[in-house]
Amino acid sequence: MMQWISDSNILIVGLGLMGGSYARALKRLGFRVTAVSRSQSSIDYALAEEIIDAGAATPDPALIGSADAVILCLYPGVLLDWLEENQRFLKPGALLTDVTGVKSCVVYDVQDLLRPDLEFIASHPMAGREVSGVANSDASIFQGANFLITPTERNSDAAIDWCEGLGRLLGCRQISVVTPEEHDEMIGFVSQLTHCIAVALMTCKNDPMLSRFTGDSFRDLTRIAHINDEMWSELLLRNKSALLREMDAFAAEFQALRDLISAEDREGIRGKMRTSTTRRDRFNLPNNGTED
Amino acid sequence: MMQWISDSNILIVGLGLMGGSYARALKRLGFRVTAVSRSQSSIDYALAEEIIDAGAATPDPALIGSADAVILCLYPGVLLDWLEENQRFLKPGALLTDVTGVKSCVVYDVQDLLRPDLEFIASHPMAGREVSGVANSDASIFQGANFLITPTERNSDAAIDWCEGLGRLLGCRQISVVTPEEHDEMIGFVSQLTHCIAVALMTCKNDPMLSRFTGDSFRDLTRIAHINDEMWSELLLRNKSALLREMDAFAAEFQALRDLISAEDREGIRGKMRTSTTRRDRFNLPNNGTED
Repeated sequence: MMQWISDSNILIVGLGLMGGSYARALKRLGFRVTAVSRSQSSIDYALAEEIIDAGAATPDPALIGSADAVILCLYPGVLLDWLEENQRFLKPGALLTDVTGVKSCVVYDVQDLLRPDLEFIASHPMAGREVSGVANSDASIFQGANFLITPTERNSDAAIDWCEGLGRLLGCRQISVVTPEEHDEMIGFVSQLTHCIAVALMTCKNDPMLSRFTGDSFRDLTRIAHINDEMWSELLLRNKSALLREMDAFAAEFQALRDLISAEDREGIRGKMRTSTTRRDRFNLPNNGTED
Repeated sequence: MMQWISDSNILIVGLGLMGGSYARALKRLGFRVTAVSRSQSSIDYALAEEIIDAGAATPDPALIGSADAVILCLYPGVLLDWLEENQRFLKPGALLTDVTGVKSCVVYDVQDLLRPDLEFIASHPMAGREVSGVANSDASIFQGANFLITPTERNSDAAIDWCEGLGRLLGCRQISVVTPEEHDEMIGFVSQLTHCIAVALMTCKNDPMLSRFTGDSFRDLTRIAHINDEMWSELLLRNKSALLREMDAFAAEFQALRDLISAEDREGIRGKMRTSTTRRDRFNLPNNGTED
């Protein structure tokens, strides 16, 4: 089983924001980092910036075959295709992980497809930026972030430990091991629902004078309304049933608050606010895994 | 008409987060700053920290009578009461402003009540923090913030200019003059609706493991879910009709996005996301008055 020793070869597949951020973080730690990407300009940029040691915009058997570990930084829709075409080049015993924001629709299919002498252990760093591309990549996005590992029955303890090591090397603070289904439910809530709210808040009113009235609260709630529509539409649709449940639960609660306001039920409103304050405070406790 | 000259006496009425922040900012600029507050401990704190030059926890006729300008930092419900009891002590020609987050339910009543030799020009700095009290006050909250002035037909141009000067002294970047009604509609949207969304997001699901899954997006959207329930319940109810309109518009748009996801209308979802991205980008343009 591959260990995190500094002469390891790490192959990044897909050199966008996340791939670039992994490459920067791992290169800084002394690993040999290579990359394959559809985009020659991303490879050129990463070589010029010394984010990677070698790279190719075509599937390069020697490059792929030299990897001890592979980090798949692809959209879910092309991840399976890439493996189908290129897993034949991988070194026996190589370990693979990913960064995908949805899990149950990816993990089982990948494990079904994979050669028996390879192991795929899925993970998801809860880190990102509202901009995309390798030029915006940043090793610091992982600092203090949550890191989720979603093994199945097919995964070995050694692979889970290896993946935990990756999270720690990146600087993630809290690392959790959950099932793909638990992951998708929680991600539907904390990540996908929040993006839907931000988008709807930005599209529900069009006032060119808006920026004269905004305070921090509106800016905070709409930061993620600047969104990569190609990636996010795919993520939302691949987690549709969990996301719709979370959207409906939020909409019902929002309506309940609206009805309290409409009824001028001040004590009811204050009760909701006290609950929200108490729950939000949990995030500020020292040992809960967030930096906020 | 009072000018912004450094031997001016500024009286802060109400020494909470906002009153304390005004006091700090104006004292630093060299003004003589005094305060009245119901809380002796707030006065003691502000004196010990040298945030104010003098203060009293009882209505002190001499202190109130020495003010050239008054900044009313009270909740809307007690603002009128304070004026009713204490305006008799004010110096003829004194100028008054406030910080209140709702305007049409306050401005006209104050102007109806006020002695004819005083002038009240309403304003609202779009600044704050999710914590309260003078101990959390901070002069830097005004830096780069939006500042709204909401005159009525009764206000003089000189008072509007004076109020604009206050906004500039505080370090606010964009100062806008709008009617109380325009103010309330926009504040219902950018401030009150966003707080309702944050509260509903925090109260719609209770999972003690939540903090293990959160990324920046969830933390951003719920920062303001830590909320002063006494103040905010009052603000929401005093702007009820405008707020309910904004809540309904948001809920309808959120439902429309939900329906696109349910129908797996990927192009429809991407269209909403592109609109939200374009609109959010306006905030990042150099001359639009935000620092984000």
